[in-house]
Amino acid sequence: MASTKTQPARGMRDFLPADVRRREYVIGIIKEVYERYGFEPLETPAVENIETLLGKYGEEGNQLIFKILKRGIHETTGEADLALRYDLTVPLARVVAEHRDKLPKFFKRYQIQPVWRADRPARGRFREFYQCDVDVLGSRSMIVEAEICAAASDVLKKLGFHDFSIRINHRKALTGILEAAGVVAESHDPALVALDKLDKIGREGVEKEFGERGIDASAGQRLLDFFVDLAPLGHAAEIATAENPDQKQLSLNKAVLGRMVEFVAGNETGAQGVDELRSIIDFATAMGIANHVSIDPSLARGLSYYTGAIMEINVKDLAGSLGGGGRYDNLVGMFLGEDVPACGFSLGLERILVVMSEREMFPTQVGSSPADVMVVIWNEESVVESIRLAQELRAASLRVDLYPDVDKLGKQLKYSASRGIPFVVMIGEDERARSEVAIKDMRTGDQQSVKRETVAARLRESL
Amino acid sequence: MASTKTQPARGMRDFLPADVRRREYVIGIIKEVYERYGFEPLETPAVENIETLLGKYGEEGNQLIFKILKRGIHETTGEADLALRYDLTVPLARVVAEHRDKLPKFFKRYQIQPVWRADRPARGRFREFYQCDVDVLGSRSMIVEAEICAAASDVLKKLGFHDFSIRINHRKALTGILEAAGVVAESHDPALVALDKLDKIGREGVEKEFGERGIDASAGQRLLDFFVDLAPLGHAAEIATAENPDQKQLSLNKAVLGRMVEFVAGNETGAQGVDELRSIIDFATAMGIANHVSIDPSLARGLSYYTGAIMEINVKDLAGSLGGGGRYDNLVGMFLGEDVPACGFSLGLERILVVMSEREMFPTQVGSSPADVMVVIWNEESVVESIRLAQELRAASLRVDLYPDVDKLGKQLKYSASRGIPFVVMIGEDERARSEVAIKDMRTGDQQSVKRETVAARLRESL
Repeated sequence: MASTKTQPARGMRDFLPADVRRREYVIGIIKEVYERYGFEPLETPAVENIETLLGKYGEEGNQLIFKILKRGIHETTGEADLALRYDLTVPLARVVAEHRDKLPKFFKRYQIQPVWRADRPARGRFREFYQCDVDVLGSRSMIVEAEICAAASDVLKKLGFHDFSIRINHRKALTGILEAAGVVAESHDPALVALDKLDKIGREGVEKEFGERGIDASAGQRLLDFFVDLAPLGHAAEIATAENPDQKQLSLNKAVLGRMVEFVAGNETGAQGVDELRSIIDFATAMGIANHVSIDPSLARGLSYYTGAIMEINVKDLAGSLGGGGRYDNLVGMFLGEDVPACGFSLGLERILVVMSEREMFPTQVGSSPADVMVVIWNEESVVESIRLAQELRAASLRVDLYPDVDKLGKQLKYSASRGIPFVVMIGEDERARSEVAIKDMRTGDQQSVKRETVAARLRESL
Repeated sequence: MASTKTQPARGMRDFLPADVRRREYVIGIIKEVYERYGFEPLETPAVENIETLLGKYGEEGNQLIFKILKRGIHETTGEADLALRYDLTVPLARVVAEHRDKLPKFFKRYQIQPVWRADRPARGRFREFYQCDVDVLGSRSMIVEAEICAAASDVLKKLGFHDFSIRINHRKALTGILEAAGVVAESHDPALVALDKLDKIGREGVEKEFGERGIDASAGQRLLDFFVDLAPLGHAAEIATAENPDQKQLSLNKAVLGRMVEFVAGNETGAQGVDELRSIIDFATAMGIANHVSIDPSLARGLSYYTGAIMEINVKDLAGSLGGGGRYDNLVGMFLGEDVPACGFSLGLERILVVMSEREMFPTQVGSSPADVMVVIWNEESVVESIRLAQELRAASLRVDLYPDVDKLGKQLKYSASRGIPFVVMIGEDERARSEVAIKDMRTGDQQSVKRETVAARLRESL
């Protein structure tokens, strides 16, 4: 055994053929659905100038960026001038500034590429992982939010998910609720961090945390009254299994919107947020995804760059989300020097793959056999004949493995079986004399001879 | 305008939607053909441990590797512990050592991924570019060489190339010829470097260079006699346009093989090389690619790691090659500590794209329209109706763009035209009253109204 280390770099993965097939199956469906919604593909380099990335992801982000050493005589300086792509949003912003005159007024792009983060590797957390982003640039219409949710829903349904729920909230509605409750602006973020734990630590726990975080007690009470009152309205996950989920979800959303309107009352920011949420629900209903969308006034999703709607997709058996996004009207224009309205959604490919593997959701033909049929080489004299047969079957669009060596028949059949190739074809002495080909079904062991010219059609029928 | 630099990093490229579509069209065909030949996909991380790469590509290669700084408190040391993938062969060798027990006896893998080299950027030379490699590990049979050539041929034919020629030679035949001519082992490499210029600088020029490189004069004469004598036999490019190219190419190859046999005479290494070349030609003929394969005894392809057959694909209008490869039985086992027979071929994606663009070989549907149809929003009241229509068309597998804003009809039509979307559909007052949809063909300007339930079918027919 060699002494050199042969594992992939820490936190990174080799994808053997069966892995690649599963990943490509999911990516293929994501692409197909996004293109059906008029999204176009974009690809940017894995490597960016370091100044493009630094300062864009906060102090913690800066630490997690993989930086590339200068080359040649500058290598010894220990300085970095390049860095690995950290997400797909900053490169999008750069592309919009650089290629503005070539891009349409509404730029609907999807981008499915790996990103790299020097995070501590953990179960399900890698240092190289794929992001699948869709973003619509150039429109402030709520149709965009609804369309992005519908596209993500279609992807999940096509992959076989039916129990997902898209939680949706609005940055301005949240602000309005906090203001209406009397929480001062500086306390909005800490209040939301504490509120986020309501499910886990209960009302008293949150009250205690409000106190620790210096939130005015009576404002905190009003806030808790609002959120605790919402709880009995029902949960999205229950809706999905209801008899008439569309109607049930719609009336739930309507009730939540009503409570929000009441609570924010005269607060203009809040009222605008609730109005936009109502539009999104109306459009999402027209899109046919009403049963999957539930308004969740407690959804915060970090508050950094979102300016409007925020959303997140969950399934019961995954602690984190399968994806999330929202409107961020001030971010994409950062390199351009002017605001570009934008709304986007990112599907978590690695998490989707984890859940699909655990639930065994992959169709059986994905990731199984490397070929439809293997051509056996009967003996030294029949090599050319075997090659011709393989080429005929390939010309008929079959995936054909040709055993490369002249070997014992048993060995060749054993090899085919070990690879899970369903059929073996061979031309022995008898078959050759009758211009026939023997087809062996490796799953049943059955063998039959058919006329040479019909073999491709027969295999195709049996697959 | 913003002050930040918005270009991609030096030598790297952004791929806008039309670029991505063209690249994916080519990659899709490469994958499809390789899978038809029983090759399986492999993917490895972009980042490798630095010791995996250093020392594998020679001194020059070491300089061109992008190295990644250590992170956290180690960042200030200026040391690198990781590096960007430089080719797809070293990662394959690592994978074979690491996952040996999960891989089949014959591992036929393809890998289509970017690699990074800190080369000086130039026309057609990038610092991030894709390699498309196929390799067969585990067999010493010449069927492998023939199959690899046939797969590459099928890819090129399917892309619309018909004038390519696969030049093929054999490392052992070359050694045999050099030995038979009396060139001492140390002079083999310099002799081949000089011989490589025969076309450009003529016999006298090569003689002069032989002298400068210290090659024995009479050995040099014998070598030149052999190669100059071969020239009148004909060139592959002429063959491809001959009336009976198969036969013409076959007799040419036969004649060249005859001359090689004569020349190497009793030299065992040389005789083995010529024998293997003959087998490859026989198998390639059975594969149906005889007219594209020509034996070229002067093909050298660098001599570093090849141990058997070597091949290169050329077209007339490209100075470099479209791809190349060969047998390298001692390389893949480098991490495993034992030899693994291997033969591979690498298609040059970037070069294929250059030639296809220059020759305008892309089918018109590739890289053109982002959608099959755009749905217009007639007015504020018809937003929901327009969304429903868009969803119906998407459910019928059409690629549908929905104009996101309520805007003047003229503006919406102009937008659709600017995007090259062939059809626009809309529901105005009249159409709504009659449960119809208006379809406007943006290429002809024709407009007709059809029943709502038939619109998807009508669009499909017209596309």
